[in-house]
Amino acid sequence: MFYVIGLGLSDEKDITVKGFEAVKRCERVYLESYTSILMVDKEKLETFYGRQIITATRELVELEADEILRDADKVDVAFLVVGDPLGATTHTDLLLRATSLNIPTSVIHNASILTALGSTGLQMYSFGQTLSMVFYTETWRPDSWYDRLEENLKVGMHTLVLLDIKVREQSEENMARGRLIYEPPRFMNPSTAFRQILLTESLRHPTKSSSSSSSSSSSDDEDGSDKPNEEPTPTLLDPSKTLAMSLSRIGTPTQRLVSGTLLELAELSEEDYGGPLHSIVIVGKRLHPLELEYAGKFAVGGEGGNWWKVGKEVYGVERETF
Amino acid sequence: MFYVIGLGLSDEKDITVKGFEAVKRCERVYLESYTSILMVDKEKLETFYGRQIITATRELVELEADEILRDADKVDVAFLVVGDPLGATTHTDLLLRATSLNIPTSVIHNASILTALGSTGLQMYSFGQTLSMVFYTETWRPDSWYDRLEENLKVGMHTLVLLDIKVREQSEENMARGRLIYEPPRFMNPSTAFRQILLTESLRHPTKSSSSSSSSSSSDDEDGSDKPNEEPTPTLLDPSKTLAMSLSRIGTPTQRLVSGTLLELAELSEEDYGGPLHSIVIVGKRLHPLELEYAGKFAVGGEGGNWWKVGKEVYGVERETF
Repeated sequence: MFYVIGLGLSDEKDITVKGFEAVKRCERVYLESYTSILMVDKEKLETFYGRQIITATRELVELEADEILRDADKVDVAFLVVGDPLGATTHTDLLLRATSLNIPTSVIHNASILTALGSTGLQMYSFGQTLSMVFYTETWRPDSWYDRLEENLKVGMHTLVLLDIKVREQSEENMARGRLIYEPPRFMNPSTAFRQILLTESLRHPTKSSSSSSSSSSSDDEDGSDKPNEEPTPTLLDPSKTLAMSLSRIGTPTQRLVSGTLLELAELSEEDYGGPLHSIVIVGKRLHPLELEYAGKFAVGGEGGNWWKVGKEVYGVERETF
Repeated sequence: MFYVIGLGLSDEKDITVKGFEAVKRCERVYLESYTSILMVDKEKLETFYGRQIITATRELVELEADEILRDADKVDVAFLVVGDPLGATTHTDLLLRATSLNIPTSVIHNASILTALGSTGLQMYSFGQTLSMVFYTETWRPDSWYDRLEENLKVGMHTLVLLDIKVREQSEENMARGRLIYEPPRFMNPSTAFRQILLTESLRHPTKSSSSSSSSSSSDDEDGSDKPNEEPTPTLLDPSKTLAMSLSRIGTPTQRLVSGTLLELAELSEEDYGGPLHSIVIVGKRLHPLELEYAGKFAVGGEGGNWWKVGKEVYGVERETF
């Protein structure tokens, strides 16, 4: 049997009882190491499972899938995946390949960031499509996430944004010289993510951004505008009027959530958010009072923070008493 | 400590090792019984956990939350929820209340249908907001799900639709007479769900539905239409051109998935889908070849089924070789 087993979000004990029993039966145990990480090291997993673990890099999974599947029709083989096993296309591919080799397969599900984002207090059912954001460089700022985010925001949905993880990356020089030397792993911090969002927003709407930084008084005849009566494009993403949240180390004892406006969250430092893994959420307009309240427990500035002000004035949500 | 612990999707062994250890420490253990069910009975859970379980009905949770939370600052109390614990608003409410009583809380996540729908082969990240469908009656056919579905379809997203579960429902007569007699539990079958979708579609677009049943040949001068050149409204939901899937008993040994057009799936019987629990998925236009291929394993009519024809002609996805 070829088992694909979800490990959940945090440590060795987040595996299900069913998954734990299966791992202990397996002759070979692979750990997928490139789409996410656990908060504990491989040795701790090996001790707990009583099994040696083979690290499955992207190269191994994509180029040597047959080696992973070898003899899985005769012995039990486990492929461990952080979170739920069927989040990434790679693993579906592996299952299709197993089926084509007449190898029986079994998927053991677990929590993933998609379910655990219930910790924000936002309702899972109100989330639209999930987005990914990669590290920007001076010359490469892929921002197709922006169009997808607008699609969600237009109909009031919340948006989960997964943040870039770089493991086993080579520097351009090492790659050019064919040296298999890898850079230290990098995990995008919410501080970076929110700044990239504000950067893309200002590049896509330069006028809006410059007009919002000018005085908001009605004496607009001084700014030389020749269309004083033109309505501005409705703002979907506004630094000080769009609410957002960060999710760090969800499911671990050091889990931290922060809620506030995009601007407030971009102004926090990397240290404010702490170590990986992180995700962020952009809050949609279809916000429920109970969602505002629960997520407000984590608001920048506490009870006096902009979270509540924007929640009321922009999102139109009145606080309820609990 | 007040623990809210996810049980996962199928049986007693889907709890995580961490959750299992917590349950065994608890003095009182509640099982939330009204938003979902496990495939095993309470007695089996009690034997496995070595703990007596108190069934938590909606009335108990909403009206006597303080009884559930009693002494949880001094002893350990567990509240078990099928799937992931933070899917439903009720449980967020319970956590807020615990915090306001200075009771420490701990959430132990698990798989939910939202993650497990990766079993369809469709990418979780391409799903839009999740919808719910209730049983229609002769006089009551709430169809606000239709507008939400259109929002998802317009931008190509897939849609998970959760199907009605009726537990501890009273008949109108028993309710009127104040008799606490409950009807047997009912779980909506995909067959019913797809028929309700077609019914609502035909009620919302009566013309389109009648014109699509007429000849599709180009001799449209015979149908008396006075606007022969007018383009029909773009079809978002078309019985024979929209792909969908059913998910039954996900995570259990009898798990069954079926994929096909809305019409094909509506024509299957309840027996074809088998026992509960079920969900369905409407496939969005942003369909990837790997998604088509994996989900196609479950196609009505197999390799010769409409799944592939519609996938190619309507969704524009060419098959790849694996």
